[in-house]
Amino acid sequence: MADGIISNGTHNKKALLSDSQLFEAKFDELVAELIERDLKDPGLVDALNRHREVLVYNVPGGKKNRGLSVIGSLRELLPPSQLTQDVVERALVVGWCIELLQAYFLVADDIMDASVTRRGQPCWFRKEGVGLDAINDSFFLESALYRLLRKYCRDQPYYVHLLEVFTETTFQTVLGQTLDLMTAPPGDVDLSRFSMEKYKTIVKYKTAYYSFYLPVAAAMYMAGITNEVEHSHAKEILLEMGEFFQIQDDFLDCFGDPAVTGKIGTDIQDNKCSWLVVKALEVMSPEQRAVLEACYGRKDDASVEKVKALYKSLQMQTLYHKYEEESYQRLQKLIARCAVTLPSTVFLNFANKIYKRNK
Amino acid sequence: MADGIISNGTHNKKALLSDSQLFEAKFDELVAELIERDLKDPGLVDALNRHREVLVYNVPGGKKNRGLSVIGSLRELLPPSQLTQDVVERALVVGWCIELLQAYFLVADDIMDASVTRRGQPCWFRKEGVGLDAINDSFFLESALYRLLRKYCRDQPYYVHLLEVFTETTFQTVLGQTLDLMTAPPGDVDLSRFSMEKYKTIVKYKTAYYSFYLPVAAAMYMAGITNEVEHSHAKEILLEMGEFFQIQDDFLDCFGDPAVTGKIGTDIQDNKCSWLVVKALEVMSPEQRAVLEACYGRKDDASVEKVKALYKSLQMQTLYHKYEEESYQRLQKLIARCAVTLPSTVFLNFANKIYKRNK
Repeated sequence: MADGIISNGTHNKKALLSDSQLFEAKFDELVAELIERDLKDPGLVDALNRHREVLVYNVPGGKKNRGLSVIGSLRELLPPSQLTQDVVERALVVGWCIELLQAYFLVADDIMDASVTRRGQPCWFRKEGVGLDAINDSFFLESALYRLLRKYCRDQPYYVHLLEVFTETTFQTVLGQTLDLMTAPPGDVDLSRFSMEKYKTIVKYKTAYYSFYLPVAAAMYMAGITNEVEHSHAKEILLEMGEFFQIQDDFLDCFGDPAVTGKIGTDIQDNKCSWLVVKALEVMSPEQRAVLEACYGRKDDASVEKVKALYKSLQMQTLYHKYEEESYQRLQKLIARCAVTLPSTVFLNFANKIYKRNK
Repeated sequence: MADGIISNGTHNKKALLSDSQLFEAKFDELVAELIERDLKDPGLVDALNRHREVLVYNVPGGKKNRGLSVIGSLRELLPPSQLTQDVVERALVVGWCIELLQAYFLVADDIMDASVTRRGQPCWFRKEGVGLDAINDSFFLESALYRLLRKYCRDQPYYVHLLEVFTETTFQTVLGQTLDLMTAPPGDVDLSRFSMEKYKTIVKYKTAYYSFYLPVAAAMYMAGITNEVEHSHAKEILLEMGEFFQIQDDFLDCFGDPAVTGKIGTDIQDNKCSWLVVKALEVMSPEQRAVLEACYGRKDDASVEKVKALYKSLQMQTLYHKYEEESYQRLQKLIARCAVTLPSTVFLNFANKIYKRNK
């Protein structure tokens, strides 16, 4: 879900390495630290080896856009003179903390959703000898983030803000996952549970908070911005973006070109509470609804094709483009409103990357 | 596991209510707060109702000794004049945070261990309609503790210490659960994996840190004691007690009187890495080991009786009482050593309750 934010790609001129390269390089170092500390107790060797395996399998395989947004945003919030090597290093570490938080959710969600693959490899719990022990492994991923924050940011004035924004975002995401599990339980099709209001609440809590608000909020705290008004403005903008991003993701799942997006969508087969089905339910006739009821959430090609044909006859592409344009306008207004206190580039960089993308 | 520490029972003279009564009464209030805040978003009603159900089913049904230890210890660490109503209230809340942490682990452990009942009722994941969604529910329990710490302790000088001791203890417990799952995977009997060293590491990490060190450490921070030397002394004492407590629990599982302990032990049937089997492996002959290999971890009464007969012929009762006496002496020395800076009563109250108990 929502895994295609394009990275800033800002370059660290001094080192001639992109943030993306710096970020990648940091991971192995962090794993070594997480495992090698506490090795004083020889009885822990097996458990720490397992910890390493869990980290290496589940954390680095994504696009890392959430993690990279921390340093990306910080570069917009601080003048270059303040972006010392230590500051950059801490932003990279906090970025990995977001990737750890995401890995924690994904490992657990995959068990609950009975998923098969994730990021091009079998889901962790599907691996030989793992099974439900993956639950405990997911806890490892979460603890690692607090250990890293402690090691790297303990002496910083924003330490407690980071602890709070991570624990609060975790809670928001758990609320979102709860609603998602209640609204679209895997294998139990009931379209009467779907509504646009529920859809938007799920997206906001399950995805937008941790994917959009969290990285920028962390960067703001690191830049010394603790003012609640500024955070609430940033949150409004970033949650709007998060919602748009997910709706776009849902649209591309059905209407995107697999050669461009790199994946074959299965939202229809998987009975997903996607924007397309929710929007279609709003505009369709009772006859069309009967077709949808009969075909949604089924694995056979004929059913899937019937749902797609229905979407086309309902002109979902046009409805989507109308939504996209409206969302973009809303966003520009929100961004303009807070341009007095926050650099708009933080948000515009994001916005320009995600609007009108086709992958 | 390790669920029988006896509460302090200290009385709050002013209110004429025992700490235990105050503690009980606080729970409903906390649940109401956790659910009613954030109710601004009407889309969250279903998720928050689920959250309430998870809290009520999984948190309050235990003996609550860990939670009660916070206020119990704080009463020993602060003079009565400093034990204002606010201070007591915060200690009760932090106590519930420990109960929440425990509930988080228990809900998840029960899934991984395929357990059937917990605290006299079906395990949460066994309830109709819950299943693996219990994983997400366990995350709810953990987030609740950080939300309570934030609400009640945010302005206290020890807030960040509490955040750190809770996140660190979580990590220790996850390490312990990992080792336990590796050493005694449910349904896979292999006595060669058991050793006293492993046993002690599992107990220390999986149980002693969160059950013994955490409540006292939290009370110490609340009393303004942040000195690392004092914490490390307290940790040494409390981990020794935690180890003894678990060994006693293992002993009573087999040799306790069910009429007194209130439960019928199943450690032999469940292939548990219990102190009895580990100690027996140390002292038995190859012939006796062959009997144990054939009978341990089996459900039939004949096998269980053979293991019990073996324990008796190895004089496990005598070995246990020898261990108990040695541990008690070690503890008295450790307590005496730090009596200069910490009131011994904090530890002696605990010790006197758990040594020589028969339930």
